Amino acid sequence: MYAPATVVTPPLVNEVDIVIPTIRNLDFLEQWRPFFQPYHLIIVQDGDPSINIRVPEGYDYELYNRNDINRILGPKASCISFKDGACRCFGFLVSKKKYIFTIDDDCFVAKDPSGKEINALAQHIHNLSTPATPFFFNTLYDPYREGADFVRGYPFSLREGVTTAISHGLWLNVPDYDAPTQLVKPRERNTRSTWYVDAVMTIPKGTLFPMCAMNLAFDRELIGPAMYFGLMGHGHPIGRYDDMWAGWCAKVTCDHLGLGVKTGLPYLSHSKASNPFVNLQKEFKGLFWQEDIIPFFQNVTLPKECTTAQKCYIELSKLVKEKLVSIDPYFEKLSDAMVTWIDAWNELNQSADGATTVKVKPTKPK
Amino acid sequence: MYAPATVVTPPLVNEVDIVIPTIRNLDFLEQWRPFFQPYHLIIVQDGDPSINIRVPEGYDYELYNRNDINRILGPKASCISFKDGACRCFGFLVSKKKYIFTIDDDCFVAKDPSGKEINALAQHIHNLSTPATPFFFNTLYDPYREGADFVRGYPFSLREGVTTAISHGLWLNVPDYDAPTQLVKPRERNTRSTWYVDAVMTIPKGTLFPMCAMNLAFDRELIGPAMYFGLMGHGHPIGRYDDMWAGWCAKVTCDHLGLGVKTGLPYLSHSKASNPFVNLQKEFKGLFWQEDIIPFFQNVTLPKECTTAQKCYIELSKLVKEKLVSIDPYFEKLSDAMVTWIDAWNELNQSADGATTVKVKPTKPK
Repeated sequence: MYAPATVVTPPLVNEVDIVIPTIRNLDFLEQWRPFFQPYHLIIVQDGDPSINIRVPEGYDYELYNRNDINRILGPKASCISFKDGACRCFGFLVSKKKYIFTIDDDCFVAKDPSGKEINALAQHIHNLSTPATPFFFNTLYDPYREGADFVRGYPFSLREGVTTAISHGLWLNVPDYDAPTQLVKPRERNTRSTWYVDAVMTIPKGTLFPMCAMNLAFDRELIGPAMYFGLMGHGHPIGRYDDMWAGWCAKVTCDHLGLGVKTGLPYLSHSKASNPFVNLQKEFKGLFWQEDIIPFFQNVTLPKECTTAQKCYIELSKLVKEKLVSIDPYFEKLSDAMVTWIDAWNELNQSADGATTVKVKPTKPK
Repeated sequence: MYAPATVVTPPLVNEVDIVIPTIRNLDFLEQWRPFFQPYHLIIVQDGDPSINIRVPEGYDYELYNRNDINRILGPKASCISFKDGACRCFGFLVSKKKYIFTIDDDCFVAKDPSGKEINALAQHIHNLSTPATPFFFNTLYDPYREGADFVRGYPFSLREGVTTAISHGLWLNVPDYDAPTQLVKPRERNTRSTWYVDAVMTIPKGTLFPMCAMNLAFDRELIGPAMYFGLMGHGHPIGRYDDMWAGWCAKVTCDHLGLGVKTGLPYLSHSKASNPFVNLQKEFKGLFWQEDIIPFFQNVTLPKECTTAQKCYIELSKLVKEKLVSIDPYFEKLSDAMVTWIDAWNELNQSADGATTVKVKPTKPK
């Protein structure tokens, strides 16, 4: 028995999958055991499929390597990146749960200023289970937090809030900086307790944000189809923009569908800055492409007929082809891959008419 | 000598006026002495002008009562509210300083979680002196804070930020709730140290917020003309919406002019909830009017020709007359008062062609 006595009621244990992209043994899960062990893991192995990934004993998991991805998706496997963390979205595709929590394998349990270990997953579930307020800013932050409320002047008609689709958590220790900032500030660490900002807030409608996938949860049923991590890494001219791409697409989709996006708590501890020179090589095209991509997303309007994340995403794929190919031919491939992703999503997931979902099996179940 | 040894270099002491609306003796200034005494005060006395307001010794101040307001503004005095805290904006009008800090007389020095007294004014000046980032959300909050930065994915072209025009501070102890919330939660106090959220953030462009004037600073040169507190209290059907009105107008003006609005730190300690029954009587029209007023402000677009806060405000006054009079005839009076306010502003302040500003004198200088 591995479940420690301190875990009493893990929230929504049957409705959450934890998705972990990795190329190494998952020893980091030992530290998370009190919080994660009750949950099911979906491990997406990147790189050489012949490498054996060790998962700490007692965890319930399925593991997919590149061979599995190719076998399950066939020609549609082209939309799943290789040799890049972007492969994690395959895990979103094969999950059958309502919620996804995805985490990087160099992220550990953080402590709050009182020294208490933070149950990141429980906080994400709380964020997703309570409403968001994208239409008006509440100056006392999350109005649904215990003891908090809406301040004077907050319209009563907006106090019900909207359903939360995305919960974006933060990082202590090594912050999520781009390569140039890493190069300029090699020693920066968020270790002081003042770095801990005790707040969760809704990112307002119409405002984009840099979504990092190190510590991210979302409602797969509502926004999963827009959580595609793009074409990155092997065979593509860009890397380290997988989560940014997903964030831009998911935020405009949430804004269009009237869903909420929260950021703030929970923190985890990010242990290891990746190599800034390697990062620069991966991301340098992104650094200038984003100067055009972000205004594109800031100005996107989706038609009323787009009433689901799938429909929004197909419309976005058309707009990407129409407006972004002038930046680089890469965006034509990306647009096509976005359509392939939705095809794969619809194939593996329950269709609108209620047909049963397709069950897939990894080659290496536990 | 009252200045304590701990005050070494008060920031921008010659560029800030502290504006305090009041009906009582200003004993609360004793507690603020270490932080406020180096600054000049503008006291706007509301109600009976024959009452003598006591100001703690050693403070440098000018005090204006209703007789002064009538004498200085003549017929234009009609735009300054009577028997309502909205009268505070008269202080903005007669100031000649770059920055205004305005505070209520039931607000005291708060302590941060380490027990240190918070110099609210210094934090406001810091907020106003560093840029804001209204066009894209930085998930690690204020990127200009010491040790902080922009996260991966933040567009480099937006990292210079924009000039900050407004700094909105928060409250420990008694939160700023409307009358219905006060009635429902009569005992709520923000005393736990977890209520202290150690962050300053920019309110994104296009997002409105409930601006509270209890703890507020702004750049008078940039946004002063939009900081009109409306027609409230005596002779008008509404109260307690003075700062909300100013907040809506000022935020859309800042958004149009490319200026930033920050909220968060500093906290002060709000000592006394006002009577919820009296408050309900004052604000009940606002509670339903705001359901129409807020969508109006959310959809306002100002023409390109509006290149100053004055021009924006005149345009807003026209739109108020055009769009809000259908709610209540009150808005016709308010629209006219907005124009009167700008006339008064232009009369008392330096004109665009560099003419000298008009100097006014209170009847009771120190």
